[in-house]
Amino acid sequence: MSTSSGKKYKIVVTQDLGKDVMPILLDRPDFEVVVWHGTGPCPRSWLLENAVGASGLVVLLGNKMNAETFDTAGPSLKVVSTMSVGYDHVDLDALSQRGIRLGHTPDILTDAVADISVMLALMASRNAKQTAHIVENGEWPTSVWAPYLFCGPQISSSWIKPTPTVGFIGFGRIAQATLSRLIPFGYTHCLYTTNPTSPRDTAFESGILEKHPTLKEVKRVDLYSLAKESDVVFVLAPGGDKTRHIVNETFLKSMKKTAVLVNTSRGTLVDSDALAKALKEGWIWGAGLDVVEGEPNVGADHPLVKEPRCIVLPHIGSATNETRLGMATLTAKNLVAGVLGEDMPAEYKVSK
Amino acid sequence: MSTSSGKKYKIVVTQDLGKDVMPILLDRPDFEVVVWHGTGPCPRSWLLENAVGASGLVVLLGNKMNAETFDTAGPSLKVVSTMSVGYDHVDLDALSQRGIRLGHTPDILTDAVADISVMLALMASRNAKQTAHIVENGEWPTSVWAPYLFCGPQISSSWIKPTPTVGFIGFGRIAQATLSRLIPFGYTHCLYTTNPTSPRDTAFESGILEKHPTLKEVKRVDLYSLAKESDVVFVLAPGGDKTRHIVNETFLKSMKKTAVLVNTSRGTLVDSDALAKALKEGWIWGAGLDVVEGEPNVGADHPLVKEPRCIVLPHIGSATNETRLGMATLTAKNLVAGVLGEDMPAEYKVSK
Repeated sequence: MSTSSGKKYKIVVTQDLGKDVMPILLDRPDFEVVVWHGTGPCPRSWLLENAVGASGLVVLLGNKMNAETFDTAGPSLKVVSTMSVGYDHVDLDALSQRGIRLGHTPDILTDAVADISVMLALMASRNAKQTAHIVENGEWPTSVWAPYLFCGPQISSSWIKPTPTVGFIGFGRIAQATLSRLIPFGYTHCLYTTNPTSPRDTAFESGILEKHPTLKEVKRVDLYSLAKESDVVFVLAPGGDKTRHIVNETFLKSMKKTAVLVNTSRGTLVDSDALAKALKEGWIWGAGLDVVEGEPNVGADHPLVKEPRCIVLPHIGSATNETRLGMATLTAKNLVAGVLGEDMPAEYKVSK
Repeated sequence: MSTSSGKKYKIVVTQDLGKDVMPILLDRPDFEVVVWHGTGPCPRSWLLENAVGASGLVVLLGNKMNAETFDTAGPSLKVVSTMSVGYDHVDLDALSQRGIRLGHTPDILTDAVADISVMLALMASRNAKQTAHIVENGEWPTSVWAPYLFCGPQISSSWIKPTPTVGFIGFGRIAQATLSRLIPFGYTHCLYTTNPTSPRDTAFESGILEKHPTLKEVKRVDLYSLAKESDVVFVLAPGGDKTRHIVNETFLKSMKKTAVLVNTSRGTLVDSDALAKALKEGWIWGAGLDVVEGEPNVGADHPLVKEPRCIVLPHIGSATNETRLGMATLTAKNLVAGVLGEDMPAEYKVSK
């Protein structure tokens, strides 16, 4: 099998997707597959050099997909398939002007990110960083027990706080999966914010309540109310200009002193300097971050990395074998469908 | 108010229970309260010296409550109130022979320990220790992204493993609270072991199934089956001779290579050398421990502390402000009721 002109489709892959996935591309007789096998991410020059005449590109967040890339590939380019949910690296205007389709990998990472969101909330409240360091530094044998030693606020409901409130900045699939996980921890109230220009959807809120019989309230509120009333706040909104530093000094000062903040979406949503100040001065109890502004350029001396009650992980939200294998498989399948002009399993349709 | 003879009840407190709780004891006109205010745990000599003529003792796990203690206190001693669930430090025979009552603090820490059990399962599977160290050591900026970098097994259900199994060694309140928390992570099968001499209780199992409609199976099994079939194993049984090293080489070798082990009960249940070997040789994926054999004498060079996929925390299972305040309050109330001969809120009745 080959193209109508008898030529094979040229496919450029900027990252080996692993032995379980690559055969989806390599085993096709109508594909000529060029794969970057060097150490680290593929250089821009390699990508541009190989993109010439390509029908499809398999890319990652680090590969800039702009007019230059598309024009270098030329009119043969039918699809860009990115192994990511986000598309900050793709110039959507330039893409749609040329009629190029975009595949991405939504949904499949929902559970992995919800899992780590709950983990970070627990770690931040329970002083997991400080206490693990005490053991690792050999200080356990000489630490003296006291009734309130190492204590943090309890994430689950308790005799003191029987009806805790969770707040979500952004309330999409990952936030809803995180909420589901928190229900048996005793959460009875859920506040959220979404794009303020869209109307409040009370039918949607009723649906969430129906799904969780022990939940007493689901309510879209303004940011200030969310900060003020939540015992734990999850940042799970898209990145970009509109959400930049949505968690700033004002927000953090409104939060409860015993509350924790978790960010597993995009680093830009949280003002790092404001958060470091909030932790140092005790405006909030702790924070758990899988993403940080300016990552991966976050060194050991970063003010948030040095805060004892701030857990910082290197953007591993979707890093489970199951999820990454699922993302890689979906990326390959999107590519094939896009090249052949078929329905893609997960196409991102650019609105015009 | 005072005793019938006009004398006040002498109460010895080996640990200040905090400003919110101590008034329960200090404000009573019929109590003469002696409190250890030194640094660290009270020395044995201080306890024995002050116990003479005491009606009640407020103690911690570190205070040995044996015949010597009781006989030093003398026939005035009516109650020992320990701020702990466990009573490994109490000689129950010596206690009951003298008609002394025992107060402890069960139930109240159930949620705090279930919370940390879930946290440790997530941390062990998601490489939280390794990845946090990468950030703390300043290695994030130079780490090179790859599709399967930092990946661990997914704790929640996934397209590859849609019906995961959780195993509990010991299936009391904390285990059941942990199971509840795992349900929205997609667990459909629950295996457990309990004291093998008691009969299997199928009505109890049906009750658990009824409580969790998405759960397909709850089954008491032998240790080998539990090890073999579980994706995550929680050790939540009492300590003591009968459960010592119940998790040994044989058990660990039977576990799945992708499974994680969590121990938040007593260190003695897990053979540390066997676990270190299991982690080093990849018999299992990872482990999360809040308790370790021989604690707190667990130094930085302990083989489990050095394992990159073994999280070790310094026994903070119940360390939330809410729970510890609840435990301290219950300890004080048990003491008062025991001294006055009233019903204690949480009396441990020694079976004869």
